Amino acid sequence: MEWKNSLTDLFKIDYPIIQAPMLGVTTPEMTAAASNAGSLGSLALGDLPAEKCIELIKDTKKLTNKPFAVNIFLNKIDAITPKLQADYDRTKSFLKNFTQKSGIEADFPLLSEIKLTDYHDQIEVILKENCRIVSFTFGNLDATSISKLKENNVLLIGTCTSVEEAVVLENSGIDIICVQGIEAGGHRGSFLEETIPQIGGMSLLSQVTETVKTPIIYAGGIYNAKTLLAAQLLGANGFQIGSLFLGSAESALQDFEKQRLRNLKENEIVLTKSFSGRYARGIRNAFIEEVESKEFILPYPYQNKLTAELRKASKLAKNPDFVSIWAGQSITDYSEISAGSLIKNLIEEVEKFSTKQQ
Amino acid sequence: MEWKNSLTDLFKIDYPIIQAPMLGVTTPEMTAAASNAGSLGSLALGDLPAEKCIELIKDTKKLTNKPFAVNIFLNKIDAITPKLQADYDRTKSFLKNFTQKSGIEADFPLLSEIKLTDYHDQIEVILKENCRIVSFTFGNLDATSISKLKENNVLLIGTCTSVEEAVVLENSGIDIICVQGIEAGGHRGSFLEETIPQIGGMSLLSQVTETVKTPIIYAGGIYNAKTLLAAQLLGANGFQIGSLFLGSAESALQDFEKQRLRNLKENEIVLTKSFSGRYARGIRNAFIEEVESKEFILPYPYQNKLTAELRKASKLAKNPDFVSIWAGQSITDYSEISAGSLIKNLIEEVEKFSTKQQ
Repeated sequence: MEWKNSLTDLFKIDYPIIQAPMLGVTTPEMTAAASNAGSLGSLALGDLPAEKCIELIKDTKKLTNKPFAVNIFLNKIDAITPKLQADYDRTKSFLKNFTQKSGIEADFPLLSEIKLTDYHDQIEVILKENCRIVSFTFGNLDATSISKLKENNVLLIGTCTSVEEAVVLENSGIDIICVQGIEAGGHRGSFLEETIPQIGGMSLLSQVTETVKTPIIYAGGIYNAKTLLAAQLLGANGFQIGSLFLGSAESALQDFEKQRLRNLKENEIVLTKSFSGRYARGIRNAFIEEVESKEFILPYPYQNKLTAELRKASKLAKNPDFVSIWAGQSITDYSEISAGSLIKNLIEEVEKFSTKQQ
Repeated sequence: MEWKNSLTDLFKIDYPIIQAPMLGVTTPEMTAAASNAGSLGSLALGDLPAEKCIELIKDTKKLTNKPFAVNIFLNKIDAITPKLQADYDRTKSFLKNFTQKSGIEADFPLLSEIKLTDYHDQIEVILKENCRIVSFTFGNLDATSISKLKENNVLLIGTCTSVEEAVVLENSGIDIICVQGIEAGGHRGSFLEETIPQIGGMSLLSQVTETVKTPIIYAGGIYNAKTLLAAQLLGANGFQIGSLFLGSAESALQDFEKQRLRNLKENEIVLTKSFSGRYARGIRNAFIEEVESKEFILPYPYQNKLTAELRKASKLAKNPDFVSIWAGQSITDYSEISAGSLIKNLIEEVEKFSTKQQ
């Protein structure tokens, strides 16, 4: 296995492995551990406010002087209409009743209290903090932001779930494209059309790499040597891995959540809009079943903001029924060792496997 | 590329490539062309009555003396209840109104007129006609049928869409397991639980081959050297290919259907229960959109039988709005050349690719 390629050159790293940004799971410790192991750590900034972004970036820099990526959500925010206000109140009162029965008292906000993040504020932080690599999802950056970031030598990684989206990213000058197969855990990065089921990695990765010239990272189902090398064969230059780190020492998941992962069955891993209003892959629970059957789902990001306090309260109560535990379709043992050791083990496994193949 | 392996030995063929059985597309000519090219042709018998099965098998034998597989549907047939009768009549009158608007006059049957096939009758045909390889989908054979077929040295190929289903097949002594990734066109072979979206090939194939010892065929997304070799890396011994042959010289699709394939876009390929009552992947059209939005979907096989005459009438009228054109997630050029030439070209491409890799 020849690890050096266009991506290791661009990122200035040893191995073209990317620790996936997972908001609510990734910590500065995880990002730094991944970067210190010679791969690319990713710090999940999601739609966090600028001050929080600064804090997380500073914390990460204290733990590593290696390159790492920061990941942001490009929210397209629906205007607040009377209909949205009515739907919000209806969904809120449904959730209040439903969760109180289980003894969960969440401090659901009023719609007017919800603060949404403008990603341009995050871009200002990224420039100020001199971050060198930015990945993004749920859309494409506007042309002004792309120019500004590129002028400052920031590398841009866009996320696609279709060939059409990959072409949009390439045409707007994005440096690297992350292809997200249907196997991936967490939110679908779709931005042109979001229908389920979406495209499996085998078809999607092969068809994207046949269509665009931009360097490709593949995300979705990679958890061992075989899956990493299959992605390489299909044309990927980089290999993004998330679920493998869910149980790791640096994961922000709580013990009861890590425990839930360890008895996970394949048919419990579902795509759902119930937590955020956008499709995300995670573990089926009482919340998902009830909300989907009653169809109480507001458009993103309102559903996400509404359920945030509920998820927080459920975490505090160590109740797995109302938390969102995202996970991909490849089930592993969700080992508790450090993300750095997990990466080292994977690299060794790949090297052994490649030697055996030759 | 070393083509010889456990599957080529079992099947007595040169290349572990399997032309997928596609009811309504596969012809004796296609099956024979695939077998004559050194791969394994598959004759789709679906739920056809015994007499029709005999005819197709005899026709195929006239065209090849190489091994080929026959494929049957293991229907689990719901009893006719007053509710089913009412739902059937309601769906039928909806379809009648809907299709008449487009000038399609289908001879929809009464529920009492529907003839269902008992797969045991097909097994009798298979034994009598001395077929050596049987693949099946929508379930597992009963123990008596398995014993009977095995005593007669018939090789059994079961279809799975989850690790759990693979284990069921292995435990009951099925000789070969066909793992169907979410990328695959046509009907999902699920039999334990059918939720969508299901598992992408990257995760599913890797996890099945880690769990069972039975030889594995992979189906779903294979259309070129890269996808075939990726499936091999993930542990597959055989490579089942369907969509590549949709436009071929031996395909039963009509010209207007082949034409529809040639301008196919990725977001037009959907999973739908609208035609048969079971999930199948194919090209979105007016029928799918209307039936899904109105939720007029009877359980399989009743929906399938009800829509059969409609599909026939739509074919005759060369109207793509009411035919089911199944297709997988890997879009190709759906070449018009012979299935045999398509297989030869693929083999050459794989050999070139493998040499380059070394």
